[in-house]
Amino acid sequence: MTSDAQTFVIPDFELQCGVTLPEVRLVYQTYGELSRDRRNVILYPTSYGAQHHDIDWLIGRDRILDPTRYFIVIPNQLGNGLSTSPSNDEHCGLAEDGFWFTHYDNIRAQEQMLREVFGIDRLALVYGWSMGAQQAYYWGSHYPDRVERIAALCGTAKTTDHNKIFLWSLRSALTADPAWNGHRFTAIPDRGYPAYARIYASWAASQAYYREQPYLQFGYESLEDYLLRGWEANYRKRDPHNLIAMIDTWLRCDVGNTPTFQGDYAKALSTIQAHTLVMPATTDLYFTPDDCAAEAQMIARATYTPIPSIWGHRAGHPYQNPEDEAFIRQAVTTLLQA
Amino acid sequence: MTSDAQTFVIPDFELQCGVTLPEVRLVYQTYGELSRDRRNVILYPTSYGAQHHDIDWLIGRDRILDPTRYFIVIPNQLGNGLSTSPSNDEHCGLAEDGFWFTHYDNIRAQEQMLREVFGIDRLALVYGWSMGAQQAYYWGSHYPDRVERIAALCGTAKTTDHNKIFLWSLRSALTADPAWNGHRFTAIPDRGYPAYARIYASWAASQAYYREQPYLQFGYESLEDYLLRGWEANYRKRDPHNLIAMIDTWLRCDVGNTPTFQGDYAKALSTIQAHTLVMPATTDLYFTPDDCAAEAQMIARATYTPIPSIWGHRAGHPYQNPEDEAFIRQAVTTLLQA
Repeated sequence: MTSDAQTFVIPDFELQCGVTLPEVRLVYQTYGELSRDRRNVILYPTSYGAQHHDIDWLIGRDRILDPTRYFIVIPNQLGNGLSTSPSNDEHCGLAEDGFWFTHYDNIRAQEQMLREVFGIDRLALVYGWSMGAQQAYYWGSHYPDRVERIAALCGTAKTTDHNKIFLWSLRSALTADPAWNGHRFTAIPDRGYPAYARIYASWAASQAYYREQPYLQFGYESLEDYLLRGWEANYRKRDPHNLIAMIDTWLRCDVGNTPTFQGDYAKALSTIQAHTLVMPATTDLYFTPDDCAAEAQMIARATYTPIPSIWGHRAGHPYQNPEDEAFIRQAVTTLLQA
Repeated sequence: MTSDAQTFVIPDFELQCGVTLPEVRLVYQTYGELSRDRRNVILYPTSYGAQHHDIDWLIGRDRILDPTRYFIVIPNQLGNGLSTSPSNDEHCGLAEDGFWFTHYDNIRAQEQMLREVFGIDRLALVYGWSMGAQQAYYWGSHYPDRVERIAALCGTAKTTDHNKIFLWSLRSALTADPAWNGHRFTAIPDRGYPAYARIYASWAASQAYYREQPYLQFGYESLEDYLLRGWEANYRKRDPHNLIAMIDTWLRCDVGNTPTFQGDYAKALSTIQAHTLVMPATTDLYFTPDDCAAEAQMIARATYTPIPSIWGHRAGHPYQNPEDEAFIRQAVTTLLQA
């Protein structure tokens, strides 16, 4: 880590939902040094529920993103509890109030920050997993001449119908809690969190993962212990309003649904000029290989390389998973040479 | 339908959980005629949430089970709202009260009914889908010399860990509702049902099913409409206590966990003598082909024949799905000639 996290403030920011916030605060963290020509920049947006310190373990000389060669910037997505979120800005609401963030909001704030703070107008790579991959696709389609490469791990440019059902199930389970008043939680959702966490756990790793039980090597005593300490406890650290805000963003993910493309998803994907690594995991249950392969067909310079793994969606964020990390590192190294 | 449903009453029935019920009522429906030698019997146990009238559409001269040749008996599983269930017997509880039904209870009640009412001691076939397949495996392992054939569609003889997480997510979502008091629902769980139904919908059909949207042919106007009328409305017809009771049975499914086998799952499967059709669906997300194939390896006379389908778990109950119905009918016809 080269410094503490920084905050970039944008006044009077009009969100895609129509609400204008008095200010948007974009919290970001940088790693490594910006080169004189400002051409060594990797943007690494955050995934669902994550803050920059949750995902920066893969930045390291011998890891996936090398800070001795690249200047790596992690922007915290809106709604994640560090950047402007329901938990820290009273002007924010949830979809019930006609309020939501979109990735179009995220990338516009990120673009302005990179330009105004660092003078960066060109990205060597946008690297993202899951909701980070979504943001990478938004970057590639909306700033096609500024993004040289995309590594989109376990994510799609448009949320599929099946994925929406998963998200609706999470949202409805959390808000089934007695503490939900139709707009806000009036207390900690002690019934909602366990349901939410078990839904998430069932989807984010594969059936084979639970069959082979690698979690027993990581200090968990049983399946129940893993669900409680490995899943539920982590989500309980997050404000439930933020968890819903990020679901609302994910539900609305569609690179074509912006003022630029006016609903034309195919045109948005065909606009991407970047060398694009489309990298699902073979066992991902909600960003399926089939869906990712179909998008790769619509992107001019795409390479489709699934991660062969039992880790399901989590293969793309290979914490405690050296085999998949090595696979991803090799593919990203190759991509950076393109 | 040859007659109205019948009820078989067993007094002082000791359940596997340790509770003795003053009486167990087993509601069953028969189709076709019992032959003089009583050798033309097909037992067709019910699946999760289903009652006999929900699953008897596939009985017909040109359908999967032919009542002009076979005497077909559908026993309603305990907890399904017709046979003894929390909704109709105050002596029943849920797991919170140390009360649950197991398939060992189901098959013992069914065996006694078949023997005492009809003098049946031999089954040409036990045919079951999902929780019906579970009961078929219990039959084959506990009455090995009385079951000639098993058709186990989209079910396993032991509930896998991953499947348990799905079930726990359903259970915790329904009981996240404010109407749940820790033991019972004090009102209709109007928040719990929507969450529960969306979880179920996300798992019971495949990602490809939602991609191809066959439901639009069946009178649903949109994905949202399908979830509301095609899923949530159906579950709302069921007493929520019964929905939980059947989850509690499913969670405890393990052919080896009975007084007969004392926890020896492999021995239970190896005891099966029946010609066994192990028939998962290629896209089933919770009774996966891999899990079914592993069990087929442990059964002496097993044939492993996955249904090639996008319908996921529902491929094994092919309502409105003539292609998969034809595939199943062909396989069952072959099995009945074995």
